[in-house]
Amino acid sequence: MTHPTRRTMLRGTAALAAAGVTIQAAGAACAKGPRTGDGPDVGILLYDGYSLLDPAGPAEILARVPNASVTMIAEQRGPVRTDTGGVAIVADRSISEIDRLDVLLVPGAGNRGTIGAAANQQLLQWIRRINEHTRWTTSVCTGSIILARAGLLDGHRATTYWASAEYLESTFDVTYVPERYVHSGKFITAAGVSAGLDMALYLASQLTDEPTAKAIQLALEYDPQPPFDAGNAAKADPEFRKHALALLENSQV
Amino acid sequence: MTHPTRRTMLRGTAALAAAGVTIQAAGAACAKGPRTGDGPDVGILLYDGYSLLDPAGPAEILARVPNASVTMIAEQRGPVRTDTGGVAIVADRSISEIDRLDVLLVPGAGNRGTIGAAANQQLLQWIRRINEHTRWTTSVCTGSIILARAGLLDGHRATTYWASAEYLESTFDVTYVPERYVHSGKFITAAGVSAGLDMALYLASQLTDEPTAKAIQLALEYDPQPPFDAGNAAKADPEFRKHALALLENSQV
Repeated sequence: MTHPTRRTMLRGTAALAAAGVTIQAAGAACAKGPRTGDGPDVGILLYDGYSLLDPAGPAEILARVPNASVTMIAEQRGPVRTDTGGVAIVADRSISEIDRLDVLLVPGAGNRGTIGAAANQQLLQWIRRINEHTRWTTSVCTGSIILARAGLLDGHRATTYWASAEYLESTFDVTYVPERYVHSGKFITAAGVSAGLDMALYLASQLTDEPTAKAIQLALEYDPQPPFDAGNAAKADPEFRKHALALLENSQV
Repeated sequence: MTHPTRRTMLRGTAALAAAGVTIQAAGAACAKGPRTGDGPDVGILLYDGYSLLDPAGPAEILARVPNASVTMIAEQRGPVRTDTGGVAIVADRSISEIDRLDVLLVPGAGNRGTIGAAANQQLLQWIRRINEHTRWTTSVCTGSIILARAGLLDGHRATTYWASAEYLESTFDVTYVPERYVHSGKFITAAGVSAGLDMALYLASQLTDEPTAKAIQLALEYDPQPPFDAGNAAKADPEFRKHALALLENSQV
């Protein structure tokens, strides 16, 4: 076996290889915060009990937008645990440190996390304040319930997690649209969990252009081929929906 | 606006609501490690420079397997940064603390991360040792290069990130198969980044059964509908491939 070189590992990418050799220390990366360059500053709000893929999918995609910065933000800096309790992403910034964002993304959560965030007046106030200057305010899954609770979605079309649709529409002045993502004014809301990937790719095209978004899609090999076709609630019978929700709830702390 | 209740937020899931009220402290969750119950112990190996979605997608899915534990592991405990430097997931366990896993997952990375991990003899030794007792040893993206470098894929069929296929096949005794995921013996390798979602759903069906995996798919609303159809390298022309790889490399630290 020969030792891998950049040239052989990823064909055709040797040009920029030198830049990749510098290994940035975690502390240095942690301290840098949003860039002041020409790319969008994307902030993702973490809170106790969010679902891992809700922030991680869009972060993976949006971090590929040229010169973008993606920053994880929470009430306080530090690890923030998911709904299952098993994984934590680090919030590198507290909400008190962030006054402006080009893009705000609010992920969804299970019941505990969504209820906690939707009842947290400090978080809601920060969301409202940040929203005043965003180009895009976005959500994944039940994150749209948190945006609605902050009073931002009045009169808008929006989507959410399939099992929360009735709650969203009956509680707020929101027209629920059962699509993968819904663009209404400067708001883009995504359906459940994995829908954040589709939403973020659309958002990437809005932040740049379609060829760039397509290049990001290829860069992340996002050519989904799930082994089953069971992800659409509209095609599921009530018993199967109950089974899915019970599995979800049993996995949560 | 009325305050949300579990009953209204997620219809039909009231039965288990009481369990959800207990907010587990981060420290407690952090300290629990793999469960000793009847579900699979899944360990995901983080290393400096991995791509965020590679561990996060499968973790989201596998954490829904009944009684499963999903643990993030690294050479040392603590935050481990992604290829863009912008996000860190916490490793709750060091490799010295983990002797057995039912499922090992090795994520992929950009050039820097893949080369670093593939040259790290301690990591490779741990991978080999853990593999002796796994039911499944799996990878996403260039994670298969790390498994191959550990000597585990000799004589196997496998997949990897599209731009790394030639390297994988020319360097190791591996037959590259350009599929979303490839099952060979107890190894399941996934293609680039987002392919980990498809692989993990298949793996969930192997760990449980097809109805359970389908319920997980619905629970995570994994009904992908990307706005573009540009994620398949086989359909991309050379210039567009170069564009995608340049975007990826420019986003990395």
